[in-house]
Amino acid sequence: MFLGKVVGTLVSTQKEASLDGLKFLLVRRLTAENEEESGYLVAADAVGAGLDEVVMVATGSSARQTKVTDKRPCDAVIMAIVDSWEVGGEEKYRK
Amino acid sequence: MFLGKVVGTLVSTQKEASLDGLKFLLVRRLTAENEEESGYLVAADAVGAGLDEVVMVATGSSARQTKVTDKRPCDAVIMAIVDSWEVGGEEKYRK
Amino acid sequence: MFLGKVVGTLVSTQKEASLDGLKFLLVRRLTAENEEESGYLVAADAVGAGLDEVVMVATGSSARQTKVTDKRPCDAVIMAIVDSWEVGGEEKYRK
Amino acid sequence: MFLGKVVGTLVSTQKEASLDGLKFLLVRRLTAENEEESGYLVAADAVGAGLDEVVMVATGSSARQTKVTDKRPCDAVIMAIVDSWEVGGEEKYRK
Amino acid sequence: MFLGKVVGTLVSTQKEASLDGLKFLLVRRLTAENEEESGYLVAADAVGAGLDEVVMVATGSSARQTKVTDKRPCDAVIMAIVDSWEVGGEEKYRK
Repeated sequence: MFLGKVVGTLVSTQKEASLDGLKFLLVRRLTAENEEESGYLVAADAVGAGLDEVVMVATGSSARQTKVTDKRPCDAVIMAIVDSWEVGGEEKYRK
Repeated sequence: MFLGKVVGTLVSTQKEASLDGLKFLLVRRLTAENEEESGYLVAADAVGAGLDEVVMVATGSSARQTKVTDKRPCDAVIMAIVDSWEVGGEEKYRK
Repeated sequence: MFLGKVVGTLVSTQKEASLDGLKFLLVRRLTAENEEESGYLVAADAVGAGLDEVVMVATGSSARQTKVTDKRPCDAVIMAIVDSWEVGGEEKYRK
Repeated sequence: MFLGKVVGTLVSTQKEASLDGLKFLLVRRLTAENEEESGYLVAADAVGAGLDEVVMVATGSSARQTKVTDKRPCDAVIMAIVDSWEVGGEEKYRK
Repeated sequence: MFLGKVVGTLVSTQKEASLDGLKFLLVRRLTAENEEESGYLVAADAVGAGLDEVVMVATGSSARQTKVTDKRPCDAVIMAIVDSWEVGGEEKYRK
């Protein structure tokens, strides 16, 4: 998994039918120091994440192991909202 | 998933039999700012996407979770046409 | 999937038993402009591709969705021979 | 798999229900020479790894092949604690 | 798959129980010209490979399609020992 920040939202009406009701969010990867990286990906939301929220994202087939993404053509999912993390005993982020 | 733009088409007659009828499109990745990146990939089309259309692409085993790609040797699928997206409250694309 | 050119062949006698009979080829990735890139990968051949042929390659679990690769430890397969492709209305390759 | 060092811990209360009880750790990749690289990933812990421990990490669907990660949205798992490794007959790490 | 050279060995006693008996080797990727690249990965051995041997490695879920890796948290496997390969009609390696 990687740590990311929700930076955007996306609207799509014409899509594979099984995706109806799924919320898609743009997520930017964060470094271990809690700095935004330049890339992004689009992930389905399984936990009710909001804009600017710090989240954990799982990719690949593991992204389908949630109730909302099961058997759907979805390769990235927000599966947790992060409360805090630390590196080397130092806190890098707290909600 | 990532955001991409359909930039090309491909013809193949000699292929694994299960792929008959699938449409393959060349897709260029877009940045969150809606700029074309340099690389590309070939994706199967599950939603009737056309040239120059902005789409969402799923890769890996998730690319097989649509009616047209199920159980086929296909590792990338266009599973949605994008209406719009925004980053940081600013609209970056609208169809 | 990506577009590639078959550039080499490989011989292996000591291997997982399920791989007997599979043909392995070295494939170089092609840009959308039909230029060879520097890297390569080894793919199993599901379509009778020959040296210098332009092909399409699927990777990951999707590489096992052909008759010859089913349930085998194979993560890349040539699943189509390409007749032609075009980008932005311009033909980039024709067999 | 790759070799990594556990460098941090993470707390998340709002998450996919199936993840309850899983411990998530930040892991930095190590070179074959046992030097820390700059990136990181978050992995579930299947072996009771502690901070600063040198571990082996499996990713993708293989990350779900442990008792604690089975059928969960988890794409990276610490599946072994490393005692030692050597390269070219020279020991690079010993616990 | 990619071509690699076995460059090292690894010892781990504290690991997921299903991994007992598996041999893990450090493998360096080889270019198509048979030159060692700088990175490495750890792969399970399904074919009795030895130090300095040139091998083929499969990754992802395909790494679990051998007798010794089936259903185990293992994302890379040595599934063949390479006898020879050639590129553009020129032999690049012979055992």
